[in-house]
Amino acid sequence: MLLTVGITASAQEALDSRHTIVSPEIHDDNRVTFRLKTPDHVASVRVGSDCFSSGGADLKKNAEGIWEYTTPEPLPSELYSYFYVVDGMMMLDPSNVYIVRDVSTTMNIFIIGGGIGDLYKVNAVPHGTVSRVWYDSPSLQMKRRLSVYTPAGYDPGSKRKYPVLYLLHGMGGDEEAWLALGRVAQIMDNLIAARKAHPMIVVMPNGNVAQEAAPGESALGLVPPTPYLPKTMEGTFESTFPDIVQYVDTHYRTSRKKSHRAICGLSMGGFHAKFISARYPDMFDYIGLFSAAVAPGEKVHSEVYENMELKLKKQFDTSPELYWISIGKDDFLYSANLDYRKYLSLNNYPYTWFETEGGHSWRNWRHYISRFVQEVFK
Amino acid sequence: MLLTVGITASAQEALDSRHTIVSPEIHDDNRVTFRLKTPDHVASVRVGSDCFSSGGADLKKNAEGIWEYTTPEPLPSELYSYFYVVDGMMMLDPSNVYIVRDVSTTMNIFIIGGGIGDLYKVNAVPHGTVSRVWYDSPSLQMKRRLSVYTPAGYDPGSKRKYPVLYLLHGMGGDEEAWLALGRVAQIMDNLIAARKAHPMIVVMPNGNVAQEAAPGESALGLVPPTPYLPKTMEGTFESTFPDIVQYVDTHYRTSRKKSHRAICGLSMGGFHAKFISARYPDMFDYIGLFSAAVAPGEKVHSEVYENMELKLKKQFDTSPELYWISIGKDDFLYSANLDYRKYLSLNNYPYTWFETEGGHSWRNWRHYISRFVQEVFK
Repeated sequence: MLLTVGITASAQEALDSRHTIVSPEIHDDNRVTFRLKTPDHVASVRVGSDCFSSGGADLKKNAEGIWEYTTPEPLPSELYSYFYVVDGMMMLDPSNVYIVRDVSTTMNIFIIGGGIGDLYKVNAVPHGTVSRVWYDSPSLQMKRRLSVYTPAGYDPGSKRKYPVLYLLHGMGGDEEAWLALGRVAQIMDNLIAARKAHPMIVVMPNGNVAQEAAPGESALGLVPPTPYLPKTMEGTFESTFPDIVQYVDTHYRTSRKKSHRAICGLSMGGFHAKFISARYPDMFDYIGLFSAAVAPGEKVHSEVYENMELKLKKQFDTSPELYWISIGKDDFLYSANLDYRKYLSLNNYPYTWFETEGGHSWRNWRHYISRFVQEVFK
Repeated sequence: MLLTVGITASAQEALDSRHTIVSPEIHDDNRVTFRLKTPDHVASVRVGSDCFSSGGADLKKNAEGIWEYTTPEPLPSELYSYFYVVDGMMMLDPSNVYIVRDVSTTMNIFIIGGGIGDLYKVNAVPHGTVSRVWYDSPSLQMKRRLSVYTPAGYDPGSKRKYPVLYLLHGMGGDEEAWLALGRVAQIMDNLIAARKAHPMIVVMPNGNVAQEAAPGESALGLVPPTPYLPKTMEGTFESTFPDIVQYVDTHYRTSRKKSHRAICGLSMGGFHAKFISARYPDMFDYIGLFSAAVAPGEKVHSEVYENMELKLKKQFDTSPELYWISIGKDDFLYSANLDYRKYLSLNNYPYTWFETEGGHSWRNWRHYISRFVQEVFK
């Protein structure tokens, strides 16, 4: 009654075995067991995961012939991703239906609670609405897709106006990334319920102007995602950004004040946030650069990136409430961010520096957004 | 810069191989090639898919050592799902990021165009908005999750009111099922753009009243989906349904006339549609039963299912515009639906009978919804 594909008896057995094996099993003490049932002749099963500082661990066959690995220590509270490598062949965990896509890679996820991971869980708190909408970009002459979070209580019957956070993804990402990998709807629900963040609208555009929408969501069809897209960091997204603000301000109950607008992003999105906020100095009072690329490529020529000394001077003349730079010590962009920090200091431009362990990772970006949204619209 | 997990070099190789293999490859003539790279010692790879009348096919190693199977004939236009069985172990296709979950099963999908499959594609037409919202159910004393499609042009600045279709899932399904497996957002976009369907709001509730939301979307966490849930066909969903209508009518610009309300569903959802529409005979002018269970279980006692002769008489006394019953000849509920048809005929209750090939499958349910929405709100 439930299954929808006609399948053979052997395939049916294979399907059924997925439901008898529990994986991952999160123990009461937050140790985690990974399990996989394979054909007998398989010689090695590894699990690759960001829960291991080494990147992975080897499973061993247990008494029932099931491959198994239990972490020796409890895992710190966090959202983790993982996959299996079976004799060198990568595969998802057939016992776990929770799958995220990061650009062109799919991985399983699980969450360890009891700390920051609780922010990433759906909890028994009031929930906002998440919508996928299509906006009109007259500058690009395109209809494009946008993800929008409106907080619990955002109601057509109310007159209340809300501040807006524009939240930008990284290279190869799209309007789904902050929701799926960044757990932004859960973070906002939980922080707003705890009165640690102001109720706000969160707008997640697609920062690849050659693209209408995320892979599979445009007329290109169910094509393989392309990690390297054209027209990503050459000025077009930045200079056409007001189309998005215009759409949001005319379709949502927003406050249009500078003091009620924030923009932030990760990696390429931090780059976009830097140049958009400098180009439109009266638009945003809160700016967040997470593991950001801070300078354009050498071969890129766009007026968006020119006269930055003057543009930054104008921007800081408007005294933005917060210019927040976060970066992990292991990030390949760490030294570039240090240089940018020096430049800001030399010019007496106020900023907040938030330095963490780790590198260019969704773990850090979830931490950063969880912190950043507590600092805005105070 | 793109990858987010620290992984070993061998795992990295495994990941990279996924992007060099094209699978599935849809040829110009609509034959399809499935491919998989496995460790050398693997003895058999099968593909299970509803694109095969036999349920599956065996891949063979090609000259490069890649397992491969090409359909001998072009595939008819359709959305197909598939998975691999590698020496008896089920796995998803690592080259295809398009994955759907059906209850507790995950599968890859692809679409063959040129016919009905074009309805399931994202095409270059105006797109509606898809939202996940939480509504209050005072009767259940729960907040519950709801998927809502609003058509292109549904705009806060407009006064236009829209008819509403309530679209119900089957046993084990949830508020994601009609979107992910039913491709309802694409079907509505395409049929409305072609002026074959009236612009309408489509509301997709969660029909399992023991559940707040789909797996992973409630405070239960990222737990394995449960195919058999309590409180599914015992009267509670039917008798608390007005909470949903109340929420929709107060949060969306709806027309509240009977002539502007439709309800339909698949399997358990068809059962729900039958008993809800009979219980509230002045609510819906269009009723659709797709592969529906038509009678409650023998041990079920609920006033919702009692006095049905009288309730149906009252319902048909209101002259509903359409009472549509669709079923496949191979469906295990076929004879029960034939019996129900006879009962309706004997009582001179007008209905439309839409009989197809095939059985209890999403292929049929996509066909049925595509037809049904062309028949309502005329």
